[in-house]
Amino acid sequence: MIGIFDSGIGGLTVVKEIFNLLPDYQIIYFGDTARTPYGTKGDKTIIKYAQQDAEFLKSHGAKLIIVACNTASAVAYDQLKKEFTLPLFEVITPAVAAAIQASINKKIGVIGTQATVASGIYQRLIKQKDDKIKVFSKACPLLVPLVEENWLTKPETKRILKSYLRPLKNKQIDTLILGCTHYPLLKKMIKEIMGKKVTIVDPAQATAQTVKDFLGQNNIAVKGSDHQFFVTDINSKSKEVAQKWLNKKISLQEIDIE
Amino acid sequence: MIGIFDSGIGGLTVVKEIFNLLPDYQIIYFGDTARTPYGTKGDKTIIKYAQQDAEFLKSHGAKLIIVACNTASAVAYDQLKKEFTLPLFEVITPAVAAAIQASINKKIGVIGTQATVASGIYQRLIKQKDDKIKVFSKACPLLVPLVEENWLTKPETKRILKSYLRPLKNKQIDTLILGCTHYPLLKKMIKEIMGKKVTIVDPAQATAQTVKDFLGQNNIAVKGSDHQFFVTDINSKSKEVAQKWLNKKISLQEIDIE
Repeated sequence: MIGIFDSGIGGLTVVKEIFNLLPDYQIIYFGDTARTPYGTKGDKTIIKYAQQDAEFLKSHGAKLIIVACNTASAVAYDQLKKEFTLPLFEVITPAVAAAIQASINKKIGVIGTQATVASGIYQRLIKQKDDKIKVFSKACPLLVPLVEENWLTKPETKRILKSYLRPLKNKQIDTLILGCTHYPLLKKMIKEIMGKKVTIVDPAQATAQTVKDFLGQNNIAVKGSDHQFFVTDINSKSKEVAQKWLNKKISLQEIDIE
Repeated sequence: MIGIFDSGIGGLTVVKEIFNLLPDYQIIYFGDTARTPYGTKGDKTIIKYAQQDAEFLKSHGAKLIIVACNTASAVAYDQLKKEFTLPLFEVITPAVAAAIQASINKKIGVIGTQATVASGIYQRLIKQKDDKIKVFSKACPLLVPLVEENWLTKPETKRILKSYLRPLKNKQIDTLILGCTHYPLLKKMIKEIMGKKVTIVDPAQATAQTVKDFLGQNNIAVKGSDHQFFVTDINSKSKEVAQKWLNKKISLQEIDIE
């Protein structure tokens, strides 16, 4: 089983790409909806939560874990790597590689939660690969609530997006990393605002490709179709939104991991 | 000590009113910032969290507890009442009383989080007192993130507020209850949108007055000036916002209650 966790239901955008690229693999998803969002919290808290999340997946049979949450990838991945011996993937490195490949003018923008942007991880990883690239970041704390409110096409959302994206546009970036698993739901609107010349990098797609490459060379994850979806808090909205995003009926199970 | 808890730092609007009305009383505040927000979560989770929050305050010497969170007041108060013997206050009953007193045309509006509005508690309590009153509710899930982003005067915030308040305005309410502790920070803008004829009821003020009346008749809470502020997750933003709201320097202490 491929284990995937996120602070909430945002990681389902990664699930969707895994379904696309690896339709034969069984998935176990864990969304920490009771404690979501992680992106506004401090590092110590995020690391503790990520440890619990990964432990849950491992104890439920995951043979490979994807940290499908930019905040946890940015803040907790190194610590998880020390504690867990099973193959562990995060969503940042694949996105960085894709962005470096896409950028021609060497100006890359990153949008994400407060914690992801404050961690400076995208900037650091991009600079490690090519220190001539300029990275411009912008924290967009309102986008997750807007997506969870399902305001995906509202004029208010467009206005807020414009206000967040303006400084990046002014810097004439040619590549924009969507540094939060919720943001692909706003991809169309972001494309409209940024214009055709800007490549939008979706970490969910890049990560699914990385995992596919890995599984092509390592036969470890269990195949199957009996997917499992766990969350720490169920409410009617999350069920509705989850099914809408995945475009398929799923049964969410509530679980207490504290 | 007067114990006050909230899902995050929103309850500080209640602290502010307590400081105003009861300046001699010592306060212990608990903000569950690691698990905030409660308003989008299910009842079971909210009740569990509220029990832990109240227990923390009690074990740290609170002689009286204010549930300074509309969501927890709406969803968990009855359960807390069964388990805790010390005087327990919530923010809804005082707001309901103030709104009934203020309304002349008997049309009252309520704005709050998804969980508060879904609980129907304002409607129920108002109808119990006067079943001729019509209550119109609107969940406004984006307002808490907007306040925590400190977008208190931005045009985007005004646009979103207008979109939320329009249906209530159309119903010609003459009284509006701010059913979430964060909303008083948007009071000025809400007043502008609703117009002069609409009375805005702030539960923080109403609750502080109720507690003051109670303490005038019962000598139980310990006086003092050594206020304590605990949160389950500290980040630079919450510190900054907390001090700005209270307009005074406070020291936030991080604590793990899980």
